[in-house]
Amino acid sequence: MPSLTRFANANVRAMHAYTPGEQPSGEGWVKLNTNENPYPPSPQVIEAIQRELANGGARLRLYPNPTSRPLRAALAQMHGVPAEWVIAGNGSDDLLNLLMRVFAGPKKPAGMTVPSYSLYPVLARLQNAPLREIPLDRSFQFDTDRVAACRANIFFLTSPNAPSGVGYPTAQIAAVARRFRGMLVVDEAYVPFADEDAAGLVAKFPRVVVARSFSKAYGMAGVRVGYVLARPEIISLLDRARDSYNLDRLSQTAALAAVSDRAYYQRTIQQVVRTRDAFLADIRRLGWSAPPSQANFVLVEPVNAAGRRGAAVARDLFAFLTQRRILVRYFGNHPLTRAALRVSIGTDTDMALLLNAFQSWLQPATPR
Amino acid sequence: MPSLTRFANANVRAMHAYTPGEQPSGEGWVKLNTNENPYPPSPQVIEAIQRELANGGARLRLYPNPTSRPLRAALAQMHGVPAEWVIAGNGSDDLLNLLMRVFAGPKKPAGMTVPSYSLYPVLARLQNAPLREIPLDRSFQFDTDRVAACRANIFFLTSPNAPSGVGYPTAQIAAVARRFRGMLVVDEAYVPFADEDAAGLVAKFPRVVVARSFSKAYGMAGVRVGYVLARPEIISLLDRARDSYNLDRLSQTAALAAVSDRAYYQRTIQQVVRTRDAFLADIRRLGWSAPPSQANFVLVEPVNAAGRRGAAVARDLFAFLTQRRILVRYFGNHPLTRAALRVSIGTDTDMALLLNAFQSWLQPATPR
Repeated sequence: MPSLTRFANANVRAMHAYTPGEQPSGEGWVKLNTNENPYPPSPQVIEAIQRELANGGARLRLYPNPTSRPLRAALAQMHGVPAEWVIAGNGSDDLLNLLMRVFAGPKKPAGMTVPSYSLYPVLARLQNAPLREIPLDRSFQFDTDRVAACRANIFFLTSPNAPSGVGYPTAQIAAVARRFRGMLVVDEAYVPFADEDAAGLVAKFPRVVVARSFSKAYGMAGVRVGYVLARPEIISLLDRARDSYNLDRLSQTAALAAVSDRAYYQRTIQQVVRTRDAFLADIRRLGWSAPPSQANFVLVEPVNAAGRRGAAVARDLFAFLTQRRILVRYFGNHPLTRAALRVSIGTDTDMALLLNAFQSWLQPATPR
Repeated sequence: MPSLTRFANANVRAMHAYTPGEQPSGEGWVKLNTNENPYPPSPQVIEAIQRELANGGARLRLYPNPTSRPLRAALAQMHGVPAEWVIAGNGSDDLLNLLMRVFAGPKKPAGMTVPSYSLYPVLARLQNAPLREIPLDRSFQFDTDRVAACRANIFFLTSPNAPSGVGYPTAQIAAVARRFRGMLVVDEAYVPFADEDAAGLVAKFPRVVVARSFSKAYGMAGVRVGYVLARPEIISLLDRARDSYNLDRLSQTAALAAVSDRAYYQRTIQQVVRTRDAFLADIRRLGWSAPPSQANFVLVEPVNAAGRRGAAVARDLFAFLTQRRILVRYFGNHPLTRAALRVSIGTDTDMALLLNAFQSWLQPATPR
């Protein structure tokens, strides 16, 4: 039987899927590997889902609102823009995919900083689009000149950056917007944990698009909702390429309720930020380093008992933590990350357990 | 300000989005326009969702299983194939989109029968793929020779066909599979209401792919779940192009529970089939015509009080029904459908109301 892959497009044949972080199936893990919120969604979210399930779930037999209109309206109100400036998606990944599909192609290169979100190259590959990679320096800063000159048709700027957590001031992003001549997507999946956000730039710069997620700040990674703020002209293009029922009833309901309970999220976000800043201080007390994080994770560069750093040291700590059922993330494929572990911010208890494990790892007597 | 659309790919600039059927927001509609199931999902589906919401929805903060593995396993077991032969998606539309993305492109034409599902041309356009349209005859039958000779790289055969409801015998689909030289997608969204299905062909013909939906037979249009059966080699290609978390937690949970309660669905599907066959008999008693339907809808060609048929007559009936808050679907863009209305099968009560409205429309005394 001849291979079926010969029927497939060459770019798909050659590519690899995006690799998501592990979702362990067993119990008892301290799970700090995929930047989930340690706190559940607002109780109002659960109540709203319950209401949508009324009458034996009779409403589930009906198609959802195809444009997620009530959700778009609520998001628009939250950001002080008209509803036509918002589109909702099945996670922000859905919208990043649509942005790439509309604005990238064989003659329309996509751009990104490196390292950042490893989904972008996968999406560019799906579009057969060349990729312009702008390296970050050791402080995870980018050179505005190089971004401006990269000639991408669409550029993805992750702010705060993942996996470092480094946030870029709005003024710096505005400087890019002024000079870069393509579409500028500011991927703000982590911005609710940051000091500043760039949502206001959408009104000032027609080519700026801001992407947001409910997975992190709203504690709803399992619900799959994201959204994009952009000019109506851009939203309309994305709507053409969008699946006509991309958001199911329960996800729309859940996200709408989440947007309505801002007080709850202010509290939980502040708690995550406090825990993060305390954890960063603890890391530095150990004599380890980490970039200043504006996100709900920290890129920790461990130093072992012998005073050594590096990839082998990071891998050793990763293995040690896994043995203790603490899951963090290791990105061994880039010089800026391979001596480090990315640690999501959990509860204070989670972080105390992690620090305790760090200290055990540092004890030369600990058998491992 | 120059238009932002110049940054977009030309195919997206030129295209129109798929137009889903209307979802009326008011109450009191008899909604027979989007082929939803009149019966709710199995009570076990709702119970399973409730369980997933336990502990204040704490589980929602965690990403879902990225491959929907338990759901794939259950679907595989139901169809008697290994789990590697199944992929689940955010509605079968998600998977049709992926199939097009993997197997269609500027040099890889897509094919379809006309009329059939109007999403295919939208998806082909997104891939910049030429479209080979094979016309159906007045009985909604296709010419196997023409399909076999159409040189599409991927062909979408909707069986039962929409919007006619005409089902194609498995032997006829096998004949296409034997002779057509590309990938053959049998879109079986409506097949649970039919006498035969082509799932067994996947094991016999390596290039056959079968797509299924939870929207119709499972009463879960609002939950967005579909799946595809195909060789592991094909599944693996689709997985590369798939969004890594395309199915949220509640949708995975709901679909898994639905698959487990086959007795409930056997009953509700049989009820829909009984109602459909009774409705078809009623239609014929009126002296109207309709193709024999194997789906949960009927393409009704009305004859007015003056004995006339045609587009104006169908539009007149459509307007009359809408006034009475009965919503059906009109496809005025094709000679084979423009004299007809597509009526989804509701409860017996829904159909009685509809027939009553038909009779009122036929009374010359009725003011309208």
